[in-house]
Amino acid sequence: MAQVYDRVALIGLGLIASSMAHAMRRDGLAGQIVGYAKSAETRQTAREIGLCDHVAESAAEAADGADLIVLCVPVGAMGAVAAEIAPVLKPGATVSDVGSVKRTVIEAVGPYIPDGVHFIPAHPLAGTEHSGPRAGFAELFDNRYTIIVPVQGSDTDAVARLSALWQGMGALVEEMDPEHHDLVLAVTSHTPHLIAYTMVGVADDLRRVTDSEVIKYSAAGFRDFTRIAASDPVMWRDVFLNNKEATLEILGRFTEELFALQRAIRQGDGDHLHDYFTRTRAIRRGIIEAGQDTDAPDFGRGKARKE
Amino acid sequence: MAQVYDRVALIGLGLIASSMAHAMRRDGLAGQIVGYAKSAETRQTAREIGLCDHVAESAAEAADGADLIVLCVPVGAMGAVAAEIAPVLKPGATVSDVGSVKRTVIEAVGPYIPDGVHFIPAHPLAGTEHSGPRAGFAELFDNRYTIIVPVQGSDTDAVARLSALWQGMGALVEEMDPEHHDLVLAVTSHTPHLIAYTMVGVADDLRRVTDSEVIKYSAAGFRDFTRIAASDPVMWRDVFLNNKEATLEILGRFTEELFALQRAIRQGDGDHLHDYFTRTRAIRRGIIEAGQDTDAPDFGRGKARKE
Repeated sequence: MAQVYDRVALIGLGLIASSMAHAMRRDGLAGQIVGYAKSAETRQTAREIGLCDHVAESAAEAADGADLIVLCVPVGAMGAVAAEIAPVLKPGATVSDVGSVKRTVIEAVGPYIPDGVHFIPAHPLAGTEHSGPRAGFAELFDNRYTIIVPVQGSDTDAVARLSALWQGMGALVEEMDPEHHDLVLAVTSHTPHLIAYTMVGVADDLRRVTDSEVIKYSAAGFRDFTRIAASDPVMWRDVFLNNKEATLEILGRFTEELFALQRAIRQGDGDHLHDYFTRTRAIRRGIIEAGQDTDAPDFGRGKARKE
Repeated sequence: MAQVYDRVALIGLGLIASSMAHAMRRDGLAGQIVGYAKSAETRQTAREIGLCDHVAESAAEAADGADLIVLCVPVGAMGAVAAEIAPVLKPGATVSDVGSVKRTVIEAVGPYIPDGVHFIPAHPLAGTEHSGPRAGFAELFDNRYTIIVPVQGSDTDAVARLSALWQGMGALVEEMDPEHHDLVLAVTSHTPHLIAYTMVGVADDLRRVTDSEVIKYSAAGFRDFTRIAASDPVMWRDVFLNNKEATLEILGRFTEELFALQRAIRQGDGDHLHDYFTRTRAIRRGIIEAGQDTDAPDFGRGKARKE
């Protein structure tokens, strides 16, 4: 793969940015990678593991002279970072982001982007429950979707170039408008995360069932929820505060359905339960056929366990 | 490991029974394994893959002369099987089961057990989303808990022998009373499954987000729910019908917590969300330290993917 950008600046050095650094290096997609993180400890770690060619001491220093600047901070921090880097952005540069919400990020960042600079929001649908600069790995984006959300006036060539970078990092690229993105993610990501956090919180609260029992007997299903409920709290706080309408809408649908199943249990309506549980199997098959999950039993945990 | 029982009868040949057959053979725990399944197709499959030493044509034929009879059928079918095998049970034999609910199984099966036969309910907390006689594997129970639920008058030696079998199959064994078992499982298994089924059903229902989008973008969190929502519908229908009170109680707690988080989102209360999301991380760490899940990112799916 040929180089796509000369100098790339990653602002924020968590799981996504560190995976981007590894993936860009794997395929020689960037001439130089500059990074910055607000926390001195994170910057120090990034230097120790040689994550970037240079770790800057400010977002503006990292962005200065960069051809691509990717904001990899929690959604609620994007606006402030955009304000800080705006004065040093070079003409023709592209500013992108990896936020899980798009409408409010566009509202927060867009106004700071100077004329002559391209603003092309994006969102890689990939992640693990681990956080920080050591959590990244080059394969994170392989065969996963990255959604590019062009804004009014996004330059076609600049969009194509950003697409090429993501494809080079292994991703499948699609375009979407911000409202649709936020609704799709409310269904496939935000509501599932909130529900997982809730279930784990409930288990943690119960006095008659001790914490130790919840942990020991978690393999019966509960542990699946604890993985996504171990994701970064700041990132997720900002997601819910910034995708309020769509999340609340899907939560309303969820509660309706849950109440219907709850009533079926109370009334002993086995047919309702059986039909519902049969219908949901098809989606799992679809996900496996689409290459978006493994068919290995238990997500292949057995193999992970034996290694 | 020495032989624990001479002749073992497995009634029902799904994931659990077929894994038991493999695990007993791995360690020579049974002199002879006899199996029976209601479906002729399942019996045929079991014969083809040589799952048991003998596949019987009725539950009574399988149970006749067995030292241990394990009921591995959905919870709602246990009573009828017990009625059928009762006349052929030999004195000193043990009848056990692997049902996910214990109180109603004890009520349904107990009255059929003749004097001189031991009834010792049990529940291995292990499984995958796959079903049927081909789904079993010997390692399923390794380092997972099996809960033994002795009933009034359960013979100590007979309980110790059944424990030895489960330990021989790799399990960690604990004892519990039926009410506590049903509550613990409502928290760690039944409610999480119902919630996963609900979330998958909601996603399937949405018209503006197409099925294809739900599938393509599932790696953002949703796919984790689809695994347990792909479990056997008959088994799960019976679980909810037979653990009604405990499941409804935990669902009530879940709904309360969900409404509190929903209100925090509506009101923009970031501190509440952040605190809640921070608290839930500790449980995940506990589960990993207890050896009940892998610490590999994404359940080790990456490794499963590459193989």
